[in-house]
Amino acid sequence: MQRTIYGPEHDAFAASLRSFLTNEVVPNLAEWEEAGAVPRDLYREVGKLGVTGIQVPTRFGGAGETSFLFNCVVTEQIAYTRSTLGALRVHTDVVMPYVLAYADEEQQARWLPGMGSGELMSAIAMTEPGTGSDLAGMSTTARRTADGWVLNGAKTFISGGSQAELVVVVARTSHEENRRGGLSLLVVEEGMAGFGRGRNLEKLGLLTQDTTELFFEDVLVPEGNLLGEEGRAFEYLTGNLAQERLSIAVNAQAQAVAALEVTVAYVKDRSVFGKPLSGFQNTKFVLADLETQVTVGQLAVDRAIADHEQGTLSAPDAAKVKLFCTEMQGRVVDACLQLHGGYGYVREYDICRLYADARVSRIYGGTSEVMKSIIAKSMGL
Amino acid sequence: MQRTIYGPEHDAFAASLRSFLTNEVVPNLAEWEEAGAVPRDLYREVGKLGVTGIQVPTRFGGAGETSFLFNCVVTEQIAYTRSTLGALRVHTDVVMPYVLAYADEEQQARWLPGMGSGELMSAIAMTEPGTGSDLAGMSTTARRTADGWVLNGAKTFISGGSQAELVVVVARTSHEENRRGGLSLLVVEEGMAGFGRGRNLEKLGLLTQDTTELFFEDVLVPEGNLLGEEGRAFEYLTGNLAQERLSIAVNAQAQAVAALEVTVAYVKDRSVFGKPLSGFQNTKFVLADLETQVTVGQLAVDRAIADHEQGTLSAPDAAKVKLFCTEMQGRVVDACLQLHGGYGYVREYDICRLYADARVSRIYGGTSEVMKSIIAKSMGL
Amino acid sequence: MQRTIYGPEHDAFAASLRSFLTNEVVPNLAEWEEAGAVPRDLYREVGKLGVTGIQVPTRFGGAGETSFLFNCVVTEQIAYTRSTLGALRVHTDVVMPYVLAYADEEQQARWLPGMGSGELMSAIAMTEPGTGSDLAGMSTTARRTADGWVLNGAKTFISGGSQAELVVVVARTSHEENRRGGLSLLVVEEGMAGFGRGRNLEKLGLLTQDTTELFFEDVLVPEGNLLGEEGRAFEYLTGNLAQERLSIAVNAQAQAVAALEVTVAYVKDRSVFGKPLSGFQNTKFVLADLETQVTVGQLAVDRAIADHEQGTLSAPDAAKVKLFCTEMQGRVVDACLQLHGGYGYVREYDICRLYADARVSRIYGGTSEVMKSIIAKSMGL
Amino acid sequence: MQRTIYGPEHDAFAASLRSFLTNEVVPNLAEWEEAGAVPRDLYREVGKLGVTGIQVPTRFGGAGETSFLFNCVVTEQIAYTRSTLGALRVHTDVVMPYVLAYADEEQQARWLPGMGSGELMSAIAMTEPGTGSDLAGMSTTARRTADGWVLNGAKTFISGGSQAELVVVVARTSHEENRRGGLSLLVVEEGMAGFGRGRNLEKLGLLTQDTTELFFEDVLVPEGNLLGEEGRAFEYLTGNLAQERLSIAVNAQAQAVAALEVTVAYVKDRSVFGKPLSGFQNTKFVLADLETQVTVGQLAVDRAIADHEQGTLSAPDAAKVKLFCTEMQGRVVDACLQLHGGYGYVREYDICRLYADARVSRIYGGTSEVMKSIIAKSMGL
Repeated sequence: MQRTIYGPEHDAFAASLRSFLTNEVVPNLAEWEEAGAVPRDLYREVGKLGVTGIQVPTRFGGAGETSFLFNCVVTEQIAYTRSTLGALRVHTDVVMPYVLAYADEEQQARWLPGMGSGELMSAIAMTEPGTGSDLAGMSTTARRTADGWVLNGAKTFISGGSQAELVVVVARTSHEENRRGGLSLLVVEEGMAGFGRGRNLEKLGLLTQDTTELFFEDVLVPEGNLLGEEGRAFEYLTGNLAQERLSIAVNAQAQAVAALEVTVAYVKDRSVFGKPLSGFQNTKFVLADLETQVTVGQLAVDRAIADHEQGTLSAPDAAKVKLFCTEMQGRVVDACLQLHGGYGYVREYDICRLYADARVSRIYGGTSEVMKSIIAKSMGL
Repeated sequence: MQRTIYGPEHDAFAASLRSFLTNEVVPNLAEWEEAGAVPRDLYREVGKLGVTGIQVPTRFGGAGETSFLFNCVVTEQIAYTRSTLGALRVHTDVVMPYVLAYADEEQQARWLPGMGSGELMSAIAMTEPGTGSDLAGMSTTARRTADGWVLNGAKTFISGGSQAELVVVVARTSHEENRRGGLSLLVVEEGMAGFGRGRNLEKLGLLTQDTTELFFEDVLVPEGNLLGEEGRAFEYLTGNLAQERLSIAVNAQAQAVAALEVTVAYVKDRSVFGKPLSGFQNTKFVLADLETQVTVGQLAVDRAIADHEQGTLSAPDAAKVKLFCTEMQGRVVDACLQLHGGYGYVREYDICRLYADARVSRIYGGTSEVMKSIIAKSMGL
Repeated sequence: MQRTIYGPEHDAFAASLRSFLTNEVVPNLAEWEEAGAVPRDLYREVGKLGVTGIQVPTRFGGAGETSFLFNCVVTEQIAYTRSTLGALRVHTDVVMPYVLAYADEEQQARWLPGMGSGELMSAIAMTEPGTGSDLAGMSTTARRTADGWVLNGAKTFISGGSQAELVVVVARTSHEENRRGGLSLLVVEEGMAGFGRGRNLEKLGLLTQDTTELFFEDVLVPEGNLLGEEGRAFEYLTGNLAQERLSIAVNAQAQAVAALEVTVAYVKDRSVFGKPLSGFQNTKFVLADLETQVTVGQLAVDRAIADHEQGTLSAPDAAKVKLFCTEMQGRVVDACLQLHGGYGYVREYDICRLYADARVSRIYGGTSEVMKSIIAKSMGL
Repeated sequence: MQRTIYGPEHDAFAASLRSFLTNEVVPNLAEWEEAGAVPRDLYREVGKLGVTGIQVPTRFGGAGETSFLFNCVVTEQIAYTRSTLGALRVHTDVVMPYVLAYADEEQQARWLPGMGSGELMSAIAMTEPGTGSDLAGMSTTARRTADGWVLNGAKTFISGGSQAELVVVVARTSHEENRRGGLSLLVVEEGMAGFGRGRNLEKLGLLTQDTTELFFEDVLVPEGNLLGEEGRAFEYLTGNLAQERLSIAVNAQAQAVAALEVTVAYVKDRSVFGKPLSGFQNTKFVLADLETQVTVGQLAVDRAIADHEQGTLSAPDAAKVKLFCTEMQGRVVDACLQLHGGYGYVREYDICRLYADARVSRIYGGTSEVMKSIIAKSMGL
């Protein structure tokens, strides 16, 4: 079924991005995986293509798009070309919205030009060793002093953490009975004393996306680096969750599309027992089933994107789309890898990478179990 | 997510139908199940409500709707009210299109007024004992004579077969090398000599929908009862398959919605071990997962309906929607029944009937395996 | 893999039973399903074959078997012949053990000869409308008087309830803080004043196994009909659960074996699109997968039976075997029915009945969810 | 359920091996994964423990065991300690049997002492780029000359290929109409001219088990290195398949046990939302279900081992056990990783490695699809 959410401007952007990814990224993929990150310069290059500055207001040098559609195009083209832009999505889909929504004019003027050009990459530091996705259990603290905030704590699983010049840190700034209160967002900048980065975590997949531990030891964060109002971090963070989950769903869906595409090509090309793999009924039935799921997933994602554009995407609906698409992605990559036989287990085959990358989709941005809790609550259960 | 395919005219029709089904059908359901069919008169009653005549041209007394949306409303309201209109869908969604498309003016004038009023109910006789859904293997024959066609053969699994006044019979009228050729549609009418009806088949579910064997022994069918052109039945039958499968998908989806609704109500109402069933995490997670699948299924069905309204629903897309919704329905009713515990096994609980009815969805109108074959072919496999 | 639990004596018993079931039961199956129960006389007939008296001590006219193996043979042969002995298993596998273990000599002399000959059939009345499997929430009460116990309450889902001459009723005989205390077993006999039987519940399957509501209105139960000691019913009932669940697992496994057998025969016999159904790769793969699950299930059941013979079958192990075999049965009958196409939906095909019967396996004797709770507890969770 | 296949001698061996693995292997695991192989010396060390020489006849310095049970102990202890012995299983369970069965006395005297001590490690070269598991399609050839065989071709996916001193190569030695004929086994030794090793393949998992490409360019293999008779390789290779698949099943089962064990420990230790993860019903139900599958899998594996000891393990039964255990392992590691949340995606957590390693189980030694074909054939399908 034909997709209907994009116009010619999106198609043009997609085509130019596709060409860049195919020519400049794909040939380097293996090397960057080995390195555990994309080159820092890559973000500046795609900044020139307009990728990092999509939603940055024009007065700060960006494209001033309020639509999320171009972000979706970026996510999809990365998947379709089986390439990577490292931890870019954290920068554009997760951190950018906070800066756009909660940074004051001075902060925006300070950060947005660089964020738009790819000069200042950003990350968000939420998860702590031991607390997982339970914001309320957070133990990183920031104490107010005359000179600003004194930040202490450790964070982990920070996507893009090793390269980011700006890190939005969620810290406890006061202790309240309501444990969700008392949290604030502080922007820690590259070079601040006491701000350290740990080793990159070795992950199952997403090998070009650095994931780090960060340490804050008496980091003095100036008052002017408080993002939004003190004590409202919980509200801010949950307020953007629908878009974050939509972003994950868009990615999961696009990765599933890619997995199916490489597999259909593979089974047509490959023969076993003197017969093309595509000629076996099992191959046909497995792929027809996956195609069906992928088609339906696309309808769900596209509807959620359209609702998001209208400002009507509810939290439970975002949860449903994330749940459906990431679980579906898991089934798709597993079945597709199986059709590749032994080759599927070797990293040089795209399906192997798609499989390894996929496993985190059901976990990050809230696990499938968290999604179910949200959905159940919306059903009055 | 809000549905968008219906306008106020559909909502009004839905409301009036809902009221009829709730008041006139639901109280009789158990009795009609016992009887194995709805009363013949029921069709005349809903004929008065406009249900049977939706697509009948106004000059023959119908509403002259070309849209399929009202048909969808009927299917959905039957499901939502957990009621029945027997084998109605065969009449309105399967046979009616053939008569509208292929009957000549004389035939339309003869049949459509009755078909619209519910006076003449119709069925289609395709499947034969032993050949299943393989049209090409058909052995019912019609030999041309001076007086018309002489029809011989046996058919089975005829929905609505015991009550239909008109039966569209697929018969072999010539033997051709291409085994799909040589098939024609003949309309057999109640009372023709040699036309017999066998016993009603005892089925797992759909207990108010009679399913019969039909026998044709030297039935003389007048020339004027040939529907469309001789030898083109295969083409006619496959030409309407997309709508038939869409109709099944709409039904499967609506039945899944109903199953989920009764189950959510049940778990809120029912306590086990001194705690409402809805309070258990397993209950929440199971239902959240089903809700997600049902939501996504609705998007798929609605898109397919919209495409069908535009005339752009392809055969593979119809197959995908049928496959997805019927398989999903199967999972939903199974999990919902389980949440009912022992009550789910007792017919007086709606979920038991929904479960029993659901099992045929993955089979009729082409099995899930047939759907996968169609989809695989469209993928070049 | 060869089974190893049976000796020649079991094989001989199996052969004679098989012959009886094939000749005397199978031909009447449809009629008895229609009637909703097997004829009361059937139990006397199989009593003569030794079926009802397997474990009855020889001094009361039984075979005096302490082994459970013959019971397993009975369950299996019923399944393998696709026949029925109504609610027999309740009598032999559920109630008999209580009478053997807790009835005093006088009671045994009064009841066991009839129970062994099939003259006195028995049922157990545990579940109440509204409380399900939560023994502690029971509201049927028995008040001690000078003349015996005065019993009041209602029970439902009583297998064999319409034909049983003896009904073991679980009743609250005192109110204790520990809600599991204060329950006793009283034997209500056919003909006692105030003992009424409700209608037979219409079920999805198990159509020859009557399932009834029972009512007790000031039924005077003589002191001599208290089974075991007052207040210890909870302990008695849970003490036999491992065997009850094993019995269900044996049945589920045997039913799965039967479903697979009829389906393998069906696909070899039946052609579609001019090719035997067994020739399609999908058919082969589906059946090979089921065969694998059934093989493994048999190993599990046989090991559990062997452990039970040794007296070492633990409650969690019984729960695991019940969970595995009943869930597996569910998958097997569903996939097997699908391979039958439309015929699978028609009751005259064995697979339809096997499908309908199977659905309760995951529910009765404790749902799959209850099994999981038991297993989790044994894991220290 | 208690396992019954092992005696005290196996338990003692298991304990000593366990201690070695825990102390000498586990601490180095991360380093060896980084290196892509275990140190060559490791095999000599475990040779001293008797691991490599289990089945080597005593006259060649081995333990002379004919039982496969000690091999199973090794596989299990590696899994239970979450450690590795590289590609050892290829040496002991796959190649050793060929040498024991088909090498002549001179060859055995030449190779077995070293194979037993770990001095001569072995690999088998079957798969070729492009032909996968289709032996009949093999294109590596060996031409007989006066000086021996001249071998040409390329092999891939050779486990242990980078370190093996002996490589059993399957080569076409004549062209016959029956494409399964004309294949022979030639032993290529380290240092033979024209024998080259390609790069190690980067795999999803099994990171300490080197997997290589091998090249043979006019390698002169002396006549005395023909293993068994010319032209009978197909028969030899298929003759050992049951044991190879059993070995994989034993490993898959043991890995599943390990995954479950680490996960049960994890959920007891870890809190989310202020509550131990083990306290959530979802955690309990998921783990209870896995525990059930793992228990049943163990029964299947143990029965297959016992049958193998008796010499009665059939090819279809081995296929069933491989299919069941590897598919089950796949479900177990997936669900266990999910319960770890983000930590599951990080390689330093055992579950991440167990997950990555598991994916090949359903593929190597014959894919699940191949297993189904074998099983279906045995059912007469």
